[in-house]
Amino acid sequence: MSARVDPAQPIGLFDSGVGGLTVLRALRRRLPAESMIYLGDTARVPYGTKSPQSVLRYATQATDHLVARGIKLLVVACNTASALSIEPLRERFDPLPVIGVVEPGAAAAVAASRRQRHLVLATESTVTHHAYARAIRALAPDAHVDEVACSLLVSLAEEGWSDGPIADAVAREYLDPVRARGSDAMPDSVVLGCTHFPLLAEPIRRAIGEGPTIVDSATTTAEEVATVLARMGLLRQSEQPGATTLLATDGAERFAKVGARFLGHPLSASDVEVVDL
Amino acid sequence: MSARVDPAQPIGLFDSGVGGLTVLRALRRRLPAESMIYLGDTARVPYGTKSPQSVLRYATQATDHLVARGIKLLVVACNTASALSIEPLRERFDPLPVIGVVEPGAAAAVAASRRQRHLVLATESTVTHHAYARAIRALAPDAHVDEVACSLLVSLAEEGWSDGPIADAVAREYLDPVRARGSDAMPDSVVLGCTHFPLLAEPIRRAIGEGPTIVDSATTTAEEVATVLARMGLLRQSEQPGATTLLATDGAERFAKVGARFLGHPLSASDVEVVDL
Repeated sequence: MSARVDPAQPIGLFDSGVGGLTVLRALRRRLPAESMIYLGDTARVPYGTKSPQSVLRYATQATDHLVARGIKLLVVACNTASALSIEPLRERFDPLPVIGVVEPGAAAAVAASRRQRHLVLATESTVTHHAYARAIRALAPDAHVDEVACSLLVSLAEEGWSDGPIADAVAREYLDPVRARGSDAMPDSVVLGCTHFPLLAEPIRRAIGEGPTIVDSATTTAEEVATVLARMGLLRQSEQPGATTLLATDGAERFAKVGARFLGHPLSASDVEVVDL
Repeated sequence: MSARVDPAQPIGLFDSGVGGLTVLRALRRRLPAESMIYLGDTARVPYGTKSPQSVLRYATQATDHLVARGIKLLVVACNTASALSIEPLRERFDPLPVIGVVEPGAAAAVAASRRQRHLVLATESTVTHHAYARAIRALAPDAHVDEVACSLLVSLAEEGWSDGPIADAVAREYLDPVRARGSDAMPDSVVLGCTHFPLLAEPIRRAIGEGPTIVDSATTTAEEVATVLARMGLLRQSEQPGATTLLATDGAERFAKVGARFLGHPLSASDVEVVDL
């Protein structure tokens, strides 16, 4: 690392929109003394149905913006962007430490599974890219990994319909084919491979049944950030909580309204600064 | 009009993605001799949850691109872009004729309604902007207009789940509050104020009941285009069908796969040219 990196600098996070606020929330809980800057690319959300080229371009622009603000570490708090752009971002922004959500999520899944039979629920792009399957098999080469694209779960979470009969019916529509394969083929770990899906953990649990462990990468990502910062001597030492700065590329009001559900506390539009990438 | 406009030039259409293909389909049926260029801004879809500033910027960039290709008339085949940007586009690109889908849709609703009680189903941005309410009241000043934002219907149409129990449940969730108000308050016209919604006409019909007329702006927009071109002496006279060019700003494969449902016939990725705005 360059000598100019200072423990007082903030951690930067970016996501395609508000979903990554579930990761910000886990980070705030794990590392309360850290300052954090969160950038939601709401002008171009969602990433999960866009091409790899576009996702990489958007991710690079978001990182450029955060780096210009002087971050000490970057969290790619979006599964699709982690799946499609983590290595190019690491190369381009070296020596900045770059942590995605896929690798910590895969590690948590491998740790939680006895039979190494995994089911990954994710966006179209993440599934097409097999990012979780590769990350899980890097840790457990014989693992069996099924991947299911669940685009509509993103919309349900954004609409605030994350519980009730419609959420249950949508979760069953995606998961019934998995259950129909019988108990031998049942996964013992279900990875929530999109930051929107922790809001739908209950309908997903009802649809898949009591057996599998449901794995969410937010907590393990926060743990990974703490480990990396400690190793680099970059943890901020303070009794005072760090500041949180929220940036969006479009629509501060909508960001505040929808984001509050993900962050777990109220937000107003004046808490959100709109920036142009 | 400038003397350089030639009836052989194509009609340009743009939309945030594939939804406007329902308008292209109606235009192809009404004006088979015309050449058409359709641009879907799939890199930034959806527009319906973005801010007015962003939608206007995207609409201007799309129009710039189509104008550079030499179109004789522009159709804004997206309700949100029509609602938020039609007047600025007309000013900026004068004397190019610019036709949106909101005004023809409003005219069709007024013509279809006896009691002038309208229900508009649209995206968040179109509803927030009250574009249909204003367009309907410009024609029928005493009209009563209810507007309901139905974001999830967009996702259902994109996912290909436009029929079945989930589509029915989602349509009922949006429309039951309207029915609960009783028969005096029931609309006699239901406007499909988003180009995705014609695919969900059946679940919408089941949810609202047999009474109201369901109004779709694609057909009336095609009629308006025919009228304007005829008035300007710009109809192409030919026995040969015109060419159709499909452009997208991202993801030719996904455009082809999802777009086929909207266009009503198969498409392959090689039918779609990816352009950068």
